[in-house]
Amino acid sequence: MVGDQAVTGGAKLYGLGVGPGDPDLLTVKAVKLLAAVPVVAYPAPEGGASLARAIAAAHIPDGKTEIAIETPMVAGRFPADEVYDRYAAKIAGQLTAGRDVAVLCEGDPFLYGSFMYLYLRLADRFPTEVIPGVSSLGACAAVAGAPLVSRNQVLTVLPAPLAEDDLEARLNLAEAAAIMKVGRHLPKVRRVLDRLGRTNRAHYVERATMDEQRVLSMAEAPEDAPYFSMILVRSPEDVEPPS
Amino acid sequence: MVGDQAVTGGAKLYGLGVGPGDPDLLTVKAVKLLAAVPVVAYPAPEGGASLARAIAAAHIPDGKTEIAIETPMVAGRFPADEVYDRYAAKIAGQLTAGRDVAVLCEGDPFLYGSFMYLYLRLADRFPTEVIPGVSSLGACAAVAGAPLVSRNQVLTVLPAPLAEDDLEARLNLAEAAAIMKVGRHLPKVRRVLDRLGRTNRAHYVERATMDEQRVLSMAEAPEDAPYFSMILVRSPEDVEPPS
Repeated sequence: MVGDQAVTGGAKLYGLGVGPGDPDLLTVKAVKLLAAVPVVAYPAPEGGASLARAIAAAHIPDGKTEIAIETPMVAGRFPADEVYDRYAAKIAGQLTAGRDVAVLCEGDPFLYGSFMYLYLRLADRFPTEVIPGVSSLGACAAVAGAPLVSRNQVLTVLPAPLAEDDLEARLNLAEAAAIMKVGRHLPKVRRVLDRLGRTNRAHYVERATMDEQRVLSMAEAPEDAPYFSMILVRSPEDVEPPS
Repeated sequence: MVGDQAVTGGAKLYGLGVGPGDPDLLTVKAVKLLAAVPVVAYPAPEGGASLARAIAAAHIPDGKTEIAIETPMVAGRFPADEVYDRYAAKIAGQLTAGRDVAVLCEGDPFLYGSFMYLYLRLADRFPTEVIPGVSSLGACAAVAGAPLVSRNQVLTVLPAPLAEDDLEARLNLAEAAAIMKVGRHLPKVRRVLDRLGRTNRAHYVERATMDEQRVLSMAEAPEDAPYFSMILVRSPEDVEPPS
């Protein structure tokens, strides 16, 4: 348990959710921690800018030691273990030297966050605390003006990279659903929703709570979506929200 | 769309997520809004204290007009439409008088939040904005030290009041799952997990991020759980987190 480890003392590792995009959607706790820790780490594409750092930028005071966790971005592939081994060693070096490290995570660290790879490598050796953040699930529903689940409805969260038949079988059994990581999988998701007759109860949300945010009905969704897009599918028996 | 309505001017209705329990898990945006709005409303059991208000209390300045949305708490029953009609009218009165109203919601307003009943009655008449909050999903996973979903795993969120056979059928098809609103349904959930052989990969979390928080293995979970408890069931093929 995290709580047990935290009492062992010494430098501490934080997995810090920074929310979906609006800098004001960081929690008070995240802002306090960013002021206090000497080292801030964040995922970044190789040679590119970190979205997690951009979201938190207004709350990161000058003078921090920064570690960009650079991972190769290959569509449909997850970074090799070797990448996380290397950065875990780097972060362990800071912790061993007595310096607390906050690892920034888009959304929430334990809901599809890459922080878990560092957590699995470090939490048995250092006191570790995970600070939950606003996830893109609630943020997309909020900006779409579409209550996602209520009462005793079941919510199914589906990654769009699933195979088409698997996606269709699972959506067919789902009441409300959120389809994440849409990107280049949008045409496949559209075919599945059309076949199941659920297109008219689906919203497309791109970059929720960011300046470039777009909310469209599924019928208007672009063929080529960015990675940070989501499709919300409301339950067939749901009450109709105002349009 | 909320965004379209927001430009019509006049007093505004906010659905404001206050997170799972720790007052520091309010967002910066929620704290700013609580400072600015003249009217704060929140759900409360009939004649009892409001949990949402208690969570936000440190961030509510003196001098606000407060509206307790009192709903009868009958186990297994949702409040009658008449209750929400009445409070929607009361809130509409404040908005019509030009006063912004923030309705506090535990967790996130559109993930199983009762705010949707006010939203459905008011969002077509008044500019409305939903401020997402930290949901209990990420909070429970964080305090349990158990990454809930990663990569292309499917997450199923199941309300514990579902019928035993329905719960079992859905859990049987689920990879990772979160079972919400456990309360008096715990013995039923335990039977289902035992039959599916998934008890050893399940955590019981009670009042996540609150002072009274408890995290237990499913085998240690109490027979009589409070309403604010959740059971997290990790995917069978998952990587093992450090214990």
